[in-house]
Amino acid sequence: MTVSDRLRELDVTLPGVATPAGAYVPAVRSGSLVFTAGQLPFVDGTLAATGKVGAEVTVDDAAGLARLCGLNALAAVDALVGIDSVVKVVKVTGFVASAPGFSQQPAVIDGVSALLGEVFGTEGAHARSAVGVAELPSGAPVEVEMVVEVR
Amino acid sequence: MTVSDRLRELDVTLPGVATPAGAYVPAVRSGSLVFTAGQLPFVDGTLAATGKVGAEVTVDDAAGLARLCGLNALAAVDALVGIDSVVKVVKVTGFVASAPGFSQQPAVIDGVSALLGEVFGTEGAHARSAVGVAELPSGAPVEVEMVVEVR
Amino acid sequence: MTVSDRLRELDVTLPGVATPAGAYVPAVRSGSLVFTAGQLPFVDGTLAATGKVGAEVTVDDAAGLARLCGLNALAAVDALVGIDSVVKVVKVTGFVASAPGFSQQPAVIDGVSALLGEVFGTEGAHARSAVGVAELPSGAPVEVEMVVEVR
Repeated sequence: MTVSDRLRELDVTLPGVATPAGAYVPAVRSGSLVFTAGQLPFVDGTLAATGKVGAEVTVDDAAGLARLCGLNALAAVDALVGIDSVVKVVKVTGFVASAPGFSQQPAVIDGVSALLGEVFGTEGAHARSAVGVAELPSGAPVEVEMVVEVR
Repeated sequence: MTVSDRLRELDVTLPGVATPAGAYVPAVRSGSLVFTAGQLPFVDGTLAATGKVGAEVTVDDAAGLARLCGLNALAAVDALVGIDSVVKVVKVTGFVASAPGFSQQPAVIDGVSALLGEVFGTEGAHARSAVGVAELPSGAPVEVEMVVEVR
Repeated sequence: MTVSDRLRELDVTLPGVATPAGAYVPAVRSGSLVFTAGQLPFVDGTLAATGKVGAEVTVDDAAGLARLCGLNALAAVDALVGIDSVVKVVKVTGFVASAPGFSQQPAVIDGVSALLGEVFGTEGAHARSAVGVAELPSGAPVEVEMVVEVR
């Protein structure tokens, strides 16, 4: 089963590629690696939420936003090389705009990790860092970047 | 001398691999690179300390915690590919949970850089970023990830 | 036209390589990738500014500082492999020391992205993450690291 087939089975449609927030591109390939830009939880060009996780945004909602970031990252990969050329996910870095004392960043970034498991199965198992940052672009609660291996 | 020999000479025993804090794996290989997950200063499954560096945690103590993160990263590499297959260390990123006004992140992350120098010699010389973040998972003072080249 | 030619045409002189702030090196090559260390806006060994962006440092000034970080990163690449061996820029990560509520990190990191476009043209188009962090080494307002592909 191709990744495209699996996305259909999951009833997941990749969104349009989010417009970069500056003078850069959504993803770049070098050899067998594709590096994505940091993705925000944009839906049709609008942030799905703003605010700090642990204050204005709950952990559950933030995990959903992390999933949106992940979909945008996969859309960036798809537009560059085609999603079916992904061999495996290598690395995910998740930045969580965190209210003071909020320390459940892993539960937030599990939103994107779960997505990658659903879509890629064992090939979706990735190394991951989750950190809590002070501020993110446009007040986004979450930003996610990834590195994937392609054929 | 192999890396294993050198670890014995240094009387350094790699710990067991720390259980990931979420739906991911401790390290992934792609080609000749291994990317580790962000490692916290876990010792036998418990964080060795919590709190912000520059407030509850001193720089010296934080450097020791960064070294623990580094040992956990090497353990993750060892479990995946065997530590003796490491050719060199490529990149280290260190996130330091920083009290307001604390700006000695490099002195903290020197804890892991020194470890890599002891273990790998000149092949341990790595590019590095050290940044001060608002919050880390479970209140950890330090998180370290690395990229190594393997044969 | 080589990259060196283009730098001359732009009247851009790469600075001397900034001394690492700790026990690491400015850049490491692995295969066809060069990873730089996180670069601060040093000019001749002194930070060009300190403070938080959105408070003591304006967005425009911070974008200029990000450009300085980028020049230091290119100097690190040049010293390691020669700037003319760069095939393309792959990834940029920009950390912006952000005052509470400051969310224009992309406008800051555009300072380095614009530099890369001037120097490398279409081969300078990179994936990028921009995040707002609590504190940076020595009170720097901006830190930038990059990954480039070399021949």
